Amino acid sequence: MRHLLDTQHLSRADALEILDVAEDMADTQRREVKKLPTLRGKTVVNLFFEDSTRTRISFEAAAKRLSADVINFSAKGSSVSKGESLQDTAQTLQAMGADAVVIRHGASGAPRTLATSGWISAGVVNAGDGTHEHPTQALLDAFTIRKRLFGDDSRGRDLSGIRVTVVGDVLHSRVARSNVWLLHTLGAHVTLVAPPTLVPQDVSGWPVEIDYDLDHAIAAGPDALMMLRIQLERMSAAYFPTEREYSRRYGLDARRLAALPDGSIVLHPGPMNRGLEISAEAADSPRSTVLEQVTNGVSVRMAVLYLLLAGERPHTEKEDLR
Amino acid sequence: MRHLLDTQHLSRADALEILDVAEDMADTQRREVKKLPTLRGKTVVNLFFEDSTRTRISFEAAAKRLSADVINFSAKGSSVSKGESLQDTAQTLQAMGADAVVIRHGASGAPRTLATSGWISAGVVNAGDGTHEHPTQALLDAFTIRKRLFGDDSRGRDLSGIRVTVVGDVLHSRVARSNVWLLHTLGAHVTLVAPPTLVPQDVSGWPVEIDYDLDHAIAAGPDALMMLRIQLERMSAAYFPTEREYSRRYGLDARRLAALPDGSIVLHPGPMNRGLEISAEAADSPRSTVLEQVTNGVSVRMAVLYLLLAGERPHTEKEDLR
Amino acid sequence: MRHLLDTQHLSRADALEILDVAEDMADTQRREVKKLPTLRGKTVVNLFFEDSTRTRISFEAAAKRLSADVINFSAKGSSVSKGESLQDTAQTLQAMGADAVVIRHGASGAPRTLATSGWISAGVVNAGDGTHEHPTQALLDAFTIRKRLFGDDSRGRDLSGIRVTVVGDVLHSRVARSNVWLLHTLGAHVTLVAPPTLVPQDVSGWPVEIDYDLDHAIAAGPDALMMLRIQLERMSAAYFPTEREYSRRYGLDARRLAALPDGSIVLHPGPMNRGLEISAEAADSPRSTVLEQVTNGVSVRMAVLYLLLAGERPHTEKEDLR
Repeated sequence: MRHLLDTQHLSRADALEILDVAEDMADTQRREVKKLPTLRGKTVVNLFFEDSTRTRISFEAAAKRLSADVINFSAKGSSVSKGESLQDTAQTLQAMGADAVVIRHGASGAPRTLATSGWISAGVVNAGDGTHEHPTQALLDAFTIRKRLFGDDSRGRDLSGIRVTVVGDVLHSRVARSNVWLLHTLGAHVTLVAPPTLVPQDVSGWPVEIDYDLDHAIAAGPDALMMLRIQLERMSAAYFPTEREYSRRYGLDARRLAALPDGSIVLHPGPMNRGLEISAEAADSPRSTVLEQVTNGVSVRMAVLYLLLAGERPHTEKEDLR
Repeated sequence: MRHLLDTQHLSRADALEILDVAEDMADTQRREVKKLPTLRGKTVVNLFFEDSTRTRISFEAAAKRLSADVINFSAKGSSVSKGESLQDTAQTLQAMGADAVVIRHGASGAPRTLATSGWISAGVVNAGDGTHEHPTQALLDAFTIRKRLFGDDSRGRDLSGIRVTVVGDVLHSRVARSNVWLLHTLGAHVTLVAPPTLVPQDVSGWPVEIDYDLDHAIAAGPDALMMLRIQLERMSAAYFPTEREYSRRYGLDARRLAALPDGSIVLHPGPMNRGLEISAEAADSPRSTVLEQVTNGVSVRMAVLYLLLAGERPHTEKEDLR
Repeated sequence: MRHLLDTQHLSRADALEILDVAEDMADTQRREVKKLPTLRGKTVVNLFFEDSTRTRISFEAAAKRLSADVINFSAKGSSVSKGESLQDTAQTLQAMGADAVVIRHGASGAPRTLATSGWISAGVVNAGDGTHEHPTQALLDAFTIRKRLFGDDSRGRDLSGIRVTVVGDVLHSRVARSNVWLLHTLGAHVTLVAPPTLVPQDVSGWPVEIDYDLDHAIAAGPDALMMLRIQLERMSAAYFPTEREYSRRYGLDARRLAALPDGSIVLHPGPMNRGLEISAEAADSPRSTVLEQVTNGVSVRMAVLYLLLAGERPHTEKEDLR
């Protein structure tokens, strides 16, 4: 694997390899000394054109636990904000010896441009681009679902037969898109629940079912319910009347939580708007995987950086890891 | 010791242990290679809701010299500024594997909330909260006083019999509060000197004497004179007429410096307003410990992180340190 | 060498030593593991009073590859912006144990003040001060010229007989000043090309020729053509009529690129204004050394930090490096 740009084009084999290496990483994290020497001497650049402290520090922690050097490059206040092109920025990072570039960008497709332009040979990881994709989020979600439903010893297993229901502002959500593709590749059955105004027009080409009624979707008995974050700055009366009305119809409250099947789980990518798309009761319930998702995010990002920078998993290196 | 939240509830034994370990740390810092492997694999997060470059880089230097990984989390531009709760931020850091959270917050009590809420198991260090406390500042001040007055070989010794006079805007000063409690615990006699408008209303419950006249307090012969920083943005005519008048009555100028007893010292937490609460002559005089305080700050913060993250001081590890 | 403040007072021997150590560093960077243990336990502070992401991360990468700890100190939002003096900031960094301070400052001469004031004993590296100097930029330019024209095995060799033409806004350019002095010290012949309004008044004292006509200067057959970055915020009608007119008379376009002698090279300090001082064709041509300059910048900064912090090059340590 040279880059991680999206989940739409990620093969089942590559996806499973990331999840399995992430299990290895999670194992090392549970032990006393969390630091692995694997990427010593490698340089990971966090190239963030949009603020995202959570995602940035998750990648930073992942890289540092593999002993890589991390350089944070916030585009604000840099020559980028003075009009430097993505090409010049990328070539500069490459020339400085970056081995991987983790990029967050407001424009859909920027990571692919970076990776396929020939500007750089460093591995590129998409950390969220416009409304396009956020592949490590989907990978950590899949990892969390597999781990919760099948246990730690489920290496090699996909999500065949699992029913996942994704709820909320699908239209603006790169998290939803990445999840749809990855869950489908891994064999899960995906249902999207959203107000009609927040369903993308091209959804007819997606491998999903659509439902406009959350209670109906919950009655169908999903194994995993994924609540999307409402980004209030993107919401307006054009999409939905009021926050209160949204919450009443599409929020996960105590009643809906109680209606979920035994053994089912609730995911949220965070940060949560408690009381809007998810109630405090649901957020803190035993079904909630919100904090496991954060923990698993570090393991998954360690796995991605490892596979990009340390190459294929030879048996000897895998021994090192265990 | 699980957390360091304040000095008001810090026992004499814990305070002395911090000061003694800080002496060990200071010893290692004087030698050629300053880096200790003690906290390799540990992650320290600097969670700063207020800007404070000095305090942040002092903790950062301390953590790095113990080989910890450091992640800086400035709340500005993060999801925190979009309304994420302290609970969600804290749980996220915990889930990412933070071993210690160094928190600076504008609200008094935020570090205690963080530590006692059950949200996290990481050690919490208060790096300044509202007008409440700034315990590592008081510890480095006590360390500086002990070292200057008694020498390097004063491990185990407290400040019994030492007279410390704290001068300035006590009302708004968390540094003053932390010093009052710690100095009292360590047996020192504390006098506060301030204009009546800048003395807190609850001072009657503090183990201090109050004096409104700096010349009178100096004539009493303090061993250590601690000048507080005037934060001009907090001063107004309600508290004091003019800067010039403040300086004339409560500033440490050459005349007052000369009136101090032989062997007495002058502390200031920095950054100094030269010409306001302290004259350049006093700031740069041999009595001044301003720069030693900065150096000692790194040693004290190394000691605190060490005691929180490496647990009790077993003899073998202490050997490592020496 | 204790500090690197400018190239005007840098001896030929010191300049050549930096270039030669930079060749050693470049050799190590080409190998598998890029990290050297040389500066383990040393602390490098990037003290930036002006934003400059490129220069900051180049120094950061250089320091980290030598295993130093790096602390970034942006003056924005710090006590510096609240009026703390350079003296207090410097003394604080010193007291925290900084071994080197890399300073970028808007005021010409600030690095020299820092180094010669007696405030600190740490090594000071000028990373750009006002319109004065940017010595590591000139060193990486000289390194790039030597490497391109003479090959990797040119240790010990200076630039005698080489003709370098520097084009653009010389008046405001610290890069131009640093290059003039260093290139002269290394034996090169320097020609400056600029509109009359952008030539400094004191240029008569510089060891250069002046030409106001770029085509004439190119016809003279330079070995290296260095295009300066136009900083649009500094340009105004007082200096030059329009961008288009500037580009027509002083930009490096395809026609001028073709007129350069065989074997000659084109330098630019970046970031480039493609279409203004340099066309995309010239920027991406085989003559362009823009990206090599970035790569070489890390090697040169490694060399400078090494020479400042690890002292003279004893043979044993040099063995370590190879």
